[in-house]
Amino acid sequence: MTSSEALRARDAADPLRAFRDRFVLPEGVIYLDGNSLGALPRATPGRVAEVVGAEWGQGLIRSWNDAGWIDLAGRVGDKIGRLIGAAPGSVVVADSTSVNLFKLLSAALALRPERRVILSEQGNFPTDLYIAEGLSALLARGHGLRTLPAAEIIAAIDETVAVVMLTQVNYHTGALLDMAAITAAAHAKGALVLWDLAHSAGALPVHLERDQADFAVGCGYKFLNGGPGAPAFLHVAPRLHGLVRFPITGWLGHARPFAFEPVFAPAGGIAGAVVGTPPVLSLAALEVGVDLALEADLAAVREKSLALGRVFADLVQERCPELLLVTPMDDGARGSQVSFAHPQAYAIMQALISRGVIGDFRAPDVLRFGITPLYLRFTDMWDAVAVLHDVMQTGAWREPRFQVRQKVT
Amino acid sequence: MTSSEALRARDAADPLRAFRDRFVLPEGVIYLDGNSLGALPRATPGRVAEVVGAEWGQGLIRSWNDAGWIDLAGRVGDKIGRLIGAAPGSVVVADSTSVNLFKLLSAALALRPERRVILSEQGNFPTDLYIAEGLSALLARGHGLRTLPAAEIIAAIDETVAVVMLTQVNYHTGALLDMAAITAAAHAKGALVLWDLAHSAGALPVHLERDQADFAVGCGYKFLNGGPGAPAFLHVAPRLHGLVRFPITGWLGHARPFAFEPVFAPAGGIAGAVVGTPPVLSLAALEVGVDLALEADLAAVREKSLALGRVFADLVQERCPELLLVTPMDDGARGSQVSFAHPQAYAIMQALISRGVIGDFRAPDVLRFGITPLYLRFTDMWDAVAVLHDVMQTGAWREPRFQVRQKVT
Repeated sequence: MTSSEALRARDAADPLRAFRDRFVLPEGVIYLDGNSLGALPRATPGRVAEVVGAEWGQGLIRSWNDAGWIDLAGRVGDKIGRLIGAAPGSVVVADSTSVNLFKLLSAALALRPERRVILSEQGNFPTDLYIAEGLSALLARGHGLRTLPAAEIIAAIDETVAVVMLTQVNYHTGALLDMAAITAAAHAKGALVLWDLAHSAGALPVHLERDQADFAVGCGYKFLNGGPGAPAFLHVAPRLHGLVRFPITGWLGHARPFAFEPVFAPAGGIAGAVVGTPPVLSLAALEVGVDLALEADLAAVREKSLALGRVFADLVQERCPELLLVTPMDDGARGSQVSFAHPQAYAIMQALISRGVIGDFRAPDVLRFGITPLYLRFTDMWDAVAVLHDVMQTGAWREPRFQVRQKVT
Repeated sequence: MTSSEALRARDAADPLRAFRDRFVLPEGVIYLDGNSLGALPRATPGRVAEVVGAEWGQGLIRSWNDAGWIDLAGRVGDKIGRLIGAAPGSVVVADSTSVNLFKLLSAALALRPERRVILSEQGNFPTDLYIAEGLSALLARGHGLRTLPAAEIIAAIDETVAVVMLTQVNYHTGALLDMAAITAAAHAKGALVLWDLAHSAGALPVHLERDQADFAVGCGYKFLNGGPGAPAFLHVAPRLHGLVRFPITGWLGHARPFAFEPVFAPAGGIAGAVVGTPPVLSLAALEVGVDLALEADLAAVREKSLALGRVFADLVQERCPELLLVTPMDDGARGSQVSFAHPQAYAIMQALISRGVIGDFRAPDVLRFGITPLYLRFTDMWDAVAVLHDVMQTGAWREPRFQVRQKVT
């Protein structure tokens, strides 16, 4: 059992404590939803204002060269690559996570033309499953999506499997998969692996190259603090660069986009995965978040994430036993969130939010709390659980206003 | 022949003259590249700062509901719809023009499963051709892209043509196609039509509904002044909403995205064409540009565009006869740019830009000048041609520094 005093001492000793001041955080809020939308870095408004006012307003079209916009997607991609253990030139920022899944899943299937199974996890984030379904229907060549509980994935990989497509950290439960083991098992059967890093990039050390991942995608607006709808990223292992063919062949993925040639010739390497013009304002904001993440020691981030998550889970279990912990608490088995189930999870979360403790609800019954070590303190865990305890004790969540579903929940 | 005085008088009588002050325009620049990247609306920096600082920074995840982010793509889509003659609920902002071409071309081909030809214009913007090629290769069902000179398109439409895919205004020459006639000819043979409005949305009145267009895509960063890499838009005629199937089935195109259901069920209407989370900062900037365009009478914009273009073309032909006009000058046959060919077009444009007259170069030999009536004056035409004349007369473009190719040209 811990105490408020003990947690204050941990904050004082926290090697990452200075990072909190690098973010804008609203008064009266404990923000436990950075795994859905990361907080605003203090440097972002100034950088965005510069891009809008000086680069766009004054530089106009010249800024594609003079302000380096044309290199921005590759430059930020390489920076993200350092956070996820990917070689330079193997990551680029482009499109949304969903569009990137489509591009890479298509490229992967084309590398295993004789195989028809896409293997994924039951309970994977729906967009991953939808994209696999939609692509299979489009190709109309008998591809099928097979989903299994995580624990059964490795045993199910056989010579029919073209691609194993998995999210490293489950959005619902926070469970962390073993990238090295699953990738090795897939390769042993000749299958490729596509990793979705939505809940791992910036949250914990990822080793794409070391673990021999083939493909990866990820999100800019969660632990990378890139802002709402920040563009996503994608990775292709360098050993596959000469072999892959991307299905959406836009002009910015051409080897010579400004030659305006009538026939497509893909740019070499990861640049061939680019399609259209990237949203520069959003991309510039993403770079600020990525730069900030690069300043932190990711091993320290991971250590603090695990510690914060444990404190939070222990306090909730102790003070709110009616909530069922659904996140595996072994350090090697969880990402950077803690989730609890309760039949009234929606209303409970609304009541929490109304009191300034912001997590989110995930249908049908999960309260999800994101752990973001760059701007959360140990004492925040204490304070958040105090509010949660009060909401549960008083039944405050029963108020009718907390039952009203909002568009985004 | 005109005079500087006559042009000053036209500026004084210009009903759109007040719009110029609504834009930020750098000192010493005549900006004739708004068809590549539109100028910065004066209201944009403040709006973007509000989205970053207040909506993201203070509202955090709550802004998806409280600031209406979740409705932004549809709201801005409907506003664009008013500029292009499309019904409410038939336009949405999403992805890039290239990705949207992929989605709609795929949807169109699926509606004509027995047909194999995609018909387009020789010299269409390359991304349109590349996307058609790439999609055909992906489907591997014998689809093929056929390109012809614009004048031969209608005669070539037969029962083998699934989709006629055309850009209404050619990016190179500025030639304007007859949407009504081509669409009717296609429909008479059972073919569908996909219009790329990159160089027409915001530049001239477009009548998608009146002209019976089936599908359309367009660009946010040209005549809509949405900022570098602003998200694109797409349109599907309401009569097709129940029939189309989009190939990239992302979670935000689901009927109930926040139910996180394992199987895809498309949202009704145009919402099913959305894939992933839109880049909110870039999308908010786009809305400012679209709002500004909606304030202007598009008939007046068109009238001024044609008049400015004629003045510019006449002056250049009079004063720089070594430049070959490549834009058809009939009012019904051109969009909102004027292009000239010259073997040294690249160096000439670099010399112009160094003197503050910003147009752009399009390979292999075209000088392209965009006409944007909201922020250009008749006297700008005079002044720009005076600089062009000087560059040609003095041979200033021969300086070695103007021969050096930049990344973006």
